[in-house]
Amino acid sequence: MRGEIIAIGDELTTGQRLDTNTQWLASRLTDAGVHVLYHTTVADDLRANVDAFSAAISRADVVVTTGGLGPTADDLTRESMAAAAGVPLELDEVSLAKIQEMFASRGREMPERNRLQAMFPAGARPIGNEHGTAPGVAMSVDRPGQGPCSLFALPGVPAEMKPMWTDSVLPAIQTLQPAPRTIRHRRLKCFGVGESHLEQMMPELIARQREPLVGITVHKATITLRITASGADEAACRAAIAPTEDEIRQTLGALVFGEEDEELQHVVLRALASLGQTLAVWDAASDGLLVHWLAQADPNGEVVLSSEVTPRLQRGERAASSAAERLRADRGADLALVLARGEIDLPVESVVVAIAYEGGVRLRQIPNAVHPDINADRSAKLALNELRKRLMGAE
Amino acid sequence: MRGEIIAIGDELTTGQRLDTNTQWLASRLTDAGVHVLYHTTVADDLRANVDAFSAAISRADVVVTTGGLGPTADDLTRESMAAAAGVPLELDEVSLAKIQEMFASRGREMPERNRLQAMFPAGARPIGNEHGTAPGVAMSVDRPGQGPCSLFALPGVPAEMKPMWTDSVLPAIQTLQPAPRTIRHRRLKCFGVGESHLEQMMPELIARQREPLVGITVHKATITLRITASGADEAACRAAIAPTEDEIRQTLGALVFGEEDEELQHVVLRALASLGQTLAVWDAASDGLLVHWLAQADPNGEVVLSSEVTPRLQRGERAASSAAERLRADRGADLALVLARGEIDLPVESVVVAIAYEGGVRLRQIPNAVHPDINADRSAKLALNELRKRLMGAE
Repeated sequence: MRGEIIAIGDELTTGQRLDTNTQWLASRLTDAGVHVLYHTTVADDLRANVDAFSAAISRADVVVTTGGLGPTADDLTRESMAAAAGVPLELDEVSLAKIQEMFASRGREMPERNRLQAMFPAGARPIGNEHGTAPGVAMSVDRPGQGPCSLFALPGVPAEMKPMWTDSVLPAIQTLQPAPRTIRHRRLKCFGVGESHLEQMMPELIARQREPLVGITVHKATITLRITASGADEAACRAAIAPTEDEIRQTLGALVFGEEDEELQHVVLRALASLGQTLAVWDAASDGLLVHWLAQADPNGEVVLSSEVTPRLQRGERAASSAAERLRADRGADLALVLARGEIDLPVESVVVAIAYEGGVRLRQIPNAVHPDINADRSAKLALNELRKRLMGAE
Repeated sequence: MRGEIIAIGDELTTGQRLDTNTQWLASRLTDAGVHVLYHTTVADDLRANVDAFSAAISRADVVVTTGGLGPTADDLTRESMAAAAGVPLELDEVSLAKIQEMFASRGREMPERNRLQAMFPAGARPIGNEHGTAPGVAMSVDRPGQGPCSLFALPGVPAEMKPMWTDSVLPAIQTLQPAPRTIRHRRLKCFGVGESHLEQMMPELIARQREPLVGITVHKATITLRITASGADEAACRAAIAPTEDEIRQTLGALVFGEEDEELQHVVLRALASLGQTLAVWDAASDGLLVHWLAQADPNGEVVLSSEVTPRLQRGERAASSAAERLRADRGADLALVLARGEIDLPVESVVVAIAYEGGVRLRQIPNAVHPDINADRSAKLALNELRKRLMGAE
């Protein structure tokens, strides 16, 4: 089955905004066994949109579009779909009522222009959107000489598009497939080593033609190893992935901190919760990123009793150490984590991580001479990783 | 002048890698006065590549491609260009010698397959590549009935592609333009109103054919109005933009909080600094995002004396109000900003913003029933915006 993706908007064609939706949709389509040959990005121009839709419909069995479903004059997706399919636009009363309710639930009246979002090409079905006013559009377009093309139009807002894909589009695509081939991924998250060093530790595991394939990506000092296997079903994929995962874990040991979407803060908070221990945090080196991540992962403050952010802490190990002991006592927490800037007289910029616990303080000074864009992220991750190692008793 | 961009590679069409080259090229082409109507991303498939090249050549005066210039069998750009232009591939001895030197300088012998990188469509010129083995390809394709199309093929490695654009492609495009147009943008940032309501306030300003054009985009509750003007030079663009900017500012008033990359925290901190006032913050509703943004923008704590993050604050106005007064006194700050969760018994989820100042507390309870993915962002922005209004004396 052949698929294409169309992303719509001047903000994309002019380069004003980076399009991440297309990549997201492309990997989901690929995982669903659809062969994606083209992506097209098109400006807010009716003629160009109709041409793009017509070309995609003629080439692909499944076309997924993102963007152009808003209530404004330059949202042309509905109109372009209708023109490419050669049908008129019609008002869907049910969708109109839903849009009005959505505004009412926010205590607002629906602006007249949002009525546009209830217009659909004749024969199309709305795709429910729980998180916004714009319903998606699903329709089947007949093609002389070949089977029909299934067209799915989704909004450009990722928070709306992604659940609509998962709840509506993916199931619909799966029913279209004769004998679906399953593709599964397994991601292992690593921290505490550079990419090239990690590659040297496992050269044959990341060979290009390997099956299952192991991909390596780095984002802000966190390394993700992605194992990809294909098989008849989920169980076959899992069976193919398991030995490779074991080999990676044996090779990398404690460098692997988590799986899939886990981040260091999730692992640390889970460990603290299982130990029944509480934490107090003082961040003087990551612009509050350390505190933000912990608060996100512990929204009701069950583990993290208190968090303070202030750069107004003396540099160096002694200041961090005494700050950690003071913080632990003041807040009555089992552990206190302090992230501070390192001594100023070191050859490279560094951070200090101090962890105060019953009867002692664990102290580390770590060089942080990387690109300024990732220094704050890396500092916060260094602090979480030191806490993780402490909790694992990994030295 | 019309332009298109083609990005080539299975790693892009399958979603394995995020394409950032296209956005980079799109914004450079736009700023060079080229109207970009389409981007196309195509898999490593000869037929699909030739079709993509042919379609782009027929539609655009300038086509820039990225990727597919490597030495392997699935690098198809040179072959596709030749096929689309209807000319054979020929070996360029000079380029071959350069590639051999490049390997020699690294103490290696050139693998035979790299010979491919010295093959060019008949009539094409190599584009020098200081940072890799793959030279780019520049050629002019005649089109019956219209002027020639200029084709520029660049490698997919950003560190190679970008200098090649700057050193070779941009100058070539500038010479192609009869009277080279300069394009400039001006961005105004707004907060505190929904997208469609803001559009209703200024329908003729965002008309599609307007000159200068005003684009509107929303990101996590912040609305960006982007004025785009083209003219003979920078001064002409500025002159064209000024009256539109004035009109927008008069129409939207205090809804406009900043310009270009400014965020609410920058505006608030600048206002506090100019008043010589200090701030203490307590965040119980944005997972520390409020505190993180302020710390990023005030890295040495010159304005923000202290920041605490804890969800452990009672809901509602009374708790927030007394917390703000206490915080202001404890920290000896001129202003205290408290962001808390709203009363639980309201019809919709809401946040409370309390600002304690000399002799009073400013209190607002604001509904926050939007998607969970942006609730934290919106809450933090609501707090900053209330503080901004207080500092502006805007009520």
